[in-house]
Amino acid sequence: MKLTPAQIAEFEERGFLFLPSLFTAEEMGVLNAEVPGMFAQTRPEVVREKGSDAPRTAFYVQTWNEAFARLARHPRLVEPGMQLLGSDRLYMHQFKINAKAAFDGAVWQWHQDYGTWYEDDQMPAPKAMNIALFLAEANEFNGPLMFIPRSHRVGKLAAGHDVTTTSYPLWTIDNAAITRLVDEGGIVAPKGPPGSVLLFHCNLVHASGSNLTPWSRWIVYLSLNRCDNAIRRFSRPAHIANRDFTPIEMLPDDCLVRYARERRPAAE
Amino acid sequence: MKLTPAQIAEFEERGFLFLPSLFTAEEMGVLNAEVPGMFAQTRPEVVREKGSDAPRTAFYVQTWNEAFARLARHPRLVEPGMQLLGSDRLYMHQFKINAKAAFDGAVWQWHQDYGTWYEDDQMPAPKAMNIALFLAEANEFNGPLMFIPRSHRVGKLAAGHDVTTTSYPLWTIDNAAITRLVDEGGIVAPKGPPGSVLLFHCNLVHASGSNLTPWSRWIVYLSLNRCDNAIRRFSRPAHIANRDFTPIEMLPDDCLVRYARERRPAAE
Repeated sequence: MKLTPAQIAEFEERGFLFLPSLFTAEEMGVLNAEVPGMFAQTRPEVVREKGSDAPRTAFYVQTWNEAFARLARHPRLVEPGMQLLGSDRLYMHQFKINAKAAFDGAVWQWHQDYGTWYEDDQMPAPKAMNIALFLAEANEFNGPLMFIPRSHRVGKLAAGHDVTTTSYPLWTIDNAAITRLVDEGGIVAPKGPPGSVLLFHCNLVHASGSNLTPWSRWIVYLSLNRCDNAIRRFSRPAHIANRDFTPIEMLPDDCLVRYARERRPAAE
Repeated sequence: MKLTPAQIAEFEERGFLFLPSLFTAEEMGVLNAEVPGMFAQTRPEVVREKGSDAPRTAFYVQTWNEAFARLARHPRLVEPGMQLLGSDRLYMHQFKINAKAAFDGAVWQWHQDYGTWYEDDQMPAPKAMNIALFLAEANEFNGPLMFIPRSHRVGKLAAGHDVTTTSYPLWTIDNAAITRLVDEGGIVAPKGPPGSVLLFHCNLVHASGSNLTPWSRWIVYLSLNRCDNAIRRFSRPAHIANRDFTPIEMLPDDCLVRYARERRPAAE
């Protein structure tokens, strides 16, 4: 899985790249079968929405679920990350499933992920990125990710620490800056079926609205960082800001399908 | 202004009718010039979002603003209402501007307006309707109205009184019923420029999401009711559930433009 020069140029210009239906329905079936059981668990890695039992995020899932452990090493995700970050030595800074649950999914305010990684984790440089895999369809109604194109080009913006709006503390950007960036770049919300992949720069400003629909909008996020850009401060729990900087070793492209076959009882 | 038989049939089938750009930019300029000064007022008719100073709704504005007093009698809005409700004798049950303010606009949960009009106001029958005029563009990002097409056909649904989610108490519908209705009818969110008009049945199930964008999404709502269907209970303030059942007398079609010309100093 190699991005073309045109795809790399688009990522650098706009700050993101959308690859609809990169994973098959069979592969998504393998992953989605695991999710309800994961969100049902009571453990520190599973965070719930403020004022409800609805799941908001399941962190560090590669350490407690085998299917997602394979996804975290999947070449269709990791190899483009290596190309865009310019290094074969990447580690997983954060790996999570955001639920944006049907009826209860709450907003994520406008922010840059690097704002949090810098302020809380002392990540030296914005040489990290996100890769989102849609587990469920993202449509205009169920709180899709909203990007401000080209906003990654302004560098790290001033941010305030929002610890009240939702259940998850976030370094968020003030309204005047957002207005200026939107005037210049507009807003886009890539939509697509399960299996679609969104790659985006760690300084790209993004947000997502509430989800009032009956359709949960599960997304897996890989936050990849260069091993030579490892974080220096360990103020957040390891399941939120990983302290294991071992380089990711990719698995074969069919690792998810094989996982399902290996678990199936042998036919007689 | 007369709706065609095809338009009336569409309203009856789907529960709503969308008329993009029914008012001109000049007319919208007349109305929009008034709005910031109205939302800035501290008065019982102006309700603010929970936990912020952002305006949520300005009620009963036809009694305290002359431009909106004219809009409340505008033939392009009132005459279609007469056609759809089958009576020339209509009064204004409620007349308001919803702000859905930039950055701060919060959700309206799934509800039928007739649920509230029946429970709180003892309106005898669902022989009333809403006409929404977009003061600002409604787009996919700024919390547009979401409808479940054909949901008006199931009649009044059971509803619970939600007094905690937002600043405005509302009779809202449970998740199981919404899931069933969306399975059958889907969700639509009509979008369009200022001056667009949405007519919808008082039993049509609708909601709207949060607005995280720099774009406020002001909408005026006329809630028209037949005079022979006047409310019987006066538990809510008169500025929220009007007790003056005088039939609306329409003004000429150019009433808004004339208002602006009359106020302008005479040219020398």
